[in-house]
Order: sequence, then C-alpha cells, then structure tokens
Amino acid sequence: MEVLSQVRAFGGTQGVYSHTSEATGTQMTFAVFVPDHQPGARLPVLTYLSGLTCTHANVMEKGEYRAACAKHGIIFVAPDTSPRGEDVPDASDEYDFGKGAGFYVDATCAPWSENYRMRSYIESELPSIIAREFPADMHRQSITGHSMGGHGALTIALRNPGTYRSVSAFAPIVAPTHVPWGEKALGRYLGEDAAAWREYDAIALIEDGARLPDLLVDQGTADNFLEEQLQTHRLITACEEAGIAARIRMQEGYDHSYFFISTFLAEHIEWHAKKLAPASES
Amino acid sequence: MEVLSQVRAFGGTQGVYSHTSEATGTQMTFAVFVPDHQPGARLPVLTYLSGLTCTHANVMEKGEYRAACAKHGIIFVAPDTSPRGEDVPDASDEYDFGKGAGFYVDATCAPWSENYRMRSYIESELPSIIAREFPADMHRQSITGHSMGGHGALTIALRNPGTYRSVSAFAPIVAPTHVPWGEKALGRYLGEDAAAWREYDAIALIEDGARLPDLLVDQGTADNFLEEQLQTHRLITACEEAGIAARIRMQEGYDHSYFFISTFLAEHIEWHAKKLAPASES
Repeated sequence: MEVLSQVRAFGGTQGVYSHTSEATGTQMTFAVFVPDHQPGARLPVLTYLSGLTCTHANVMEKGEYRAACAKHGIIFVAPDTSPRGEDVPDASDEYDFGKGAGFYVDATCAPWSENYRMRSYIESELPSIIAREFPADMHRQSITGHSMGGHGALTIALRNPGTYRSVSAFAPIVAPTHVPWGEKALGRYLGEDAAAWREYDAIALIEDGARLPDLLVDQGTADNFLEEQLQTHRLITACEEAGIAARIRMQEGYDHSYFFISTFLAEHIEWHAKKLAPASES
Repeated sequence: MEVLSQVRAFGGTQGVYSHTSEATGTQMTFAVFVPDHQPGARLPVLTYLSGLTCTHANVMEKGEYRAACAKHGIIFVAPDTSPRGEDVPDASDEYDFGKGAGFYVDATCAPWSENYRMRSYIESELPSIIAREFPADMHRQSITGHSMGGHGALTIALRNPGTYRSVSAFAPIVAPTHVPWGEKALGRYLGEDAAAWREYDAIALIEDGARLPDLLVDQGTADNFLEEQLQTHRLITACEEAGIAARIRMQEGYDHSYFFISTFLAEHIEWHAKKLAPASES
C-alpha cells in the first residue's frame, strides 16, 4: 500500500492510499480517516460507498464526517466507485456506466468482467487491507453509502449477514432491476438474464429472505432522481412486509447533493456509533 | 441580483448569487448561507474572505460551516477573491497575482485599476447588497478569512473600526509588505512606492495606531507557507506591543488546506457568535 497523502484534520489523520488490487487488476485509491487513539487501540470501521461519477475524494472533501468520527472514535473508509486506468474499458460519454459507475457488482460479461469486480473488492479485498494496515477492529464494522453507493451498502449488507452491525444510506437506489440506471448497468455487466440481477437488488434480496441488521435511510423530497431512479417507497414496503426495523426519513426540500449528505452524515455516524460500541457485542 | 442556485442544507438555504458590480465593473458571484429563522427576524452576518486561487465555492464545499451557523443563527457570506471575466486583465500562469488573487486592495496602477477594486467591493458594495437582499442585521457583523483572505479580514477590520464586532483568521498573511506574495501583489496593484502599501498591511496598520475589536487566529505548524509568507510571529509581537487582546493559536501538525480550516471554522463561528449575540450590544 502506498501513502499518497496524509494530513491532520479534526484531531486525526485523513489519508489517501493506493494499492494494486487483485480483484480489479488495477491500481485502486481509497481514503481513510483515523481519529487519534490510545496506542494499541483498535477502532470500529464505517465504510462509505460513493455514488455515480464519484471517487474517494468527493465525500472526503464535502462529506463533513470527520468531527463525528473523531468524537466517536470511528475509522471512516471511502473507496473509489470503479476500477480506473487507461487500460480499463469504459463507456465514454456515459456518466452512469463504466468508470465511476461500478455499481458494486462482479461483472460477468466481456469486456467488463476483467476489471469491474467492485463486489469482491469491497466485500473482501479492501477489508483485508484495512485490517492489515490500520488500527481497525474488523469485528465492529458498519456500512453506508449514497445513491449507487446506497445500493452497494444495502446489497452488500444483505448478502453478508453478521458482517455489519448497522447499515444506513442516503438516497439509495433500492430496486435497480426496476429503474433505468440499474437496468442499464446490470444488463451490461451481468447479461440480459435478469435472474442474475437479483443478488444486486436490495428489494429482491429481501424478497428472497435476506435481512438487515438495522437500517437508517435519509431521502430528500426535492431529489430529482427520486421518482424515476430511487423509488424509496419500494424499500418502505419491502421492509414493512419483511418485518425489518427501518427508519426511512423523507427530508423535506433536500436534494441529491453533498449539501444533503453532509447535513445528515454526522447523525448517521452517531447512530452507527451506538451499534459499534464495544458493549453492543454482548 | 440573480439567483444562480439555492439548495437546502443543515436546516437553512445555501445559495449562490450573481450581480453586476459597480466596484469592479464585472459580474461578481458570491455564496450566502441563511439559516431558517422566524419571519421578520434579522440575523447577524459573518463574512469569510478566501485565499489565493479560490472562488466562493471552496469554502462553500469544504468549509464545514453550515452546522455551526445554523446552530447560532448566523448568515455566512463568501465572496469571490477577484474580478472575473474574459475582459478582465490577468497574469496567466501566475497563481498569486491577477484573477483569484485580488488581495482585497483597490488597485491604482493600469491595467489593474479598472477592475481590481476588491477593497471597495468588500467594504461597501457587497454589504449593501447583503443588507438589501437578505434578512441581515448589518449592525451585527464579524469577519474572518484564510491566508490572503485572513490578510483581507485583518486589514478591513483595522481600517473600519466599529464595523465588525470580532475578527478572526486562518493562517493569515499578516505582513504583506515584508513577504514575497505581498511584495509582488502590492507592487503591481499599487506601484513601487511602498508608502502606499501600509494601509494594506495589518502590522503596519497596527503600528500606525489602528486597533482590532477582538482577535482569534489559528495557524498550523505544518503549513508550508508559514516561514516565508505568513510569519505569524510578527502578528503576535505587534498585538503584544499594541496591547491588542489576541488569541493566536499554533495548531500542531496542521497544514494550509481546508482540512485545517474545516477543523477549526466551527469553533471560530462559536467564538464570533458570542460577540454577535444581541446582548453584546449593550
């Protein structure tokens, strides 16, 4: 792992790191904030998955998470949203497919299948690096994300019971098999047989019996993508029918941007912190 | 005044606005955050002056000020750092002169004197727009800034006694007449006669008898510009000799970036809020 930068912020260290990924076959960059801590201490980990077009940098610069993470002693991990590099196939002129739009899947269709393996990267490879390189207690993990990254957080948590103590999301894509962003991405990464898409659809996973540990979602009512792409009502219904305890909050007048995310991210961290406290293990 | 954007954030409205400036002869853009408030209420105003290369957007995206401003009911105003536009003379390839580097002076030398009038813009024109267009109580104003903007905040407050209840700064240029950034900018905007520079140098203004209402400064010890350009020790000495009550804090390990500013900006707002409270008028 290579250190690209480390700066002091909010009584901790905000770093950017790079490494050669086995999962994607590329150099992957990610950001980690580590609050100051006692020597030898191991801190819980909150992973934040970003949305379309983003890198690790958007939330690092605009997310306003460091004060809350420093207060609660939580390591904040922000990975990239896709493989990068000149050799990686891309869909130029499409913001919602290819680079910046990995959708947290392991692609099975050429030419995407060689590098677009963000599911394996987030579920397995990145946690092993965090465990090895940072003072992290990997038995205390939670996950969150925005939009496409909210989809990632929900589906990864649903497929990996016991891994995350809590999951939250900002304006998540909840039913990609039913909306244009998801139909396009899953169709091209996974092929036209929609049966293969179900493990990448939070609603379908819940219908198929998967459960979430605990769920907090914020969704702005002035979000331009709400009706066509996000369809929060599907998640509300699915959680009700499955008996999943969920706080899904419609936030009046908020949009899809980091002005929305930053408003509520500290509150999400506070909520995760309660689940991540050592006492919660019992 | 034209509304370029308005979004909901932290229980308030973050807007970006544009207008034709008499001071600069150009379109000027600025950002304003207005917390929700009672109908008819007038809120105090904190103006934040940005540093070299910045626009209104840097602090708006990376400053992490909205939570504190919403909590304390303070309007946050973030202007641009220079005139802009194709017709405005510039020094291409120089990040520290011309566009993005107005140094909060009224230039007297051609070709700069026509548009580079940021002193008049910040001292007179912008406050009149804020008073007219926003629910602002202009009898309760404070000012802060970063680097070149710290220089702006200090010199504007020193030249306008009674206007600002409090002044603070992040890594300010305190003695531009003695450092490369300042010598270059003041020499070209104002001419080679250094006597004309003194009203744009905080230390010189203090030496000449000007006083500050109350001062809070944060300066990172790992700031690459500390030794050559910022020279905080000159401000410490000048305040001591002039009997100015100043809290000048050296922050161990912090650099010159928004990671540094955002760490301490909420604390500055809290400090300004005490001076801006209505009770402080008595």
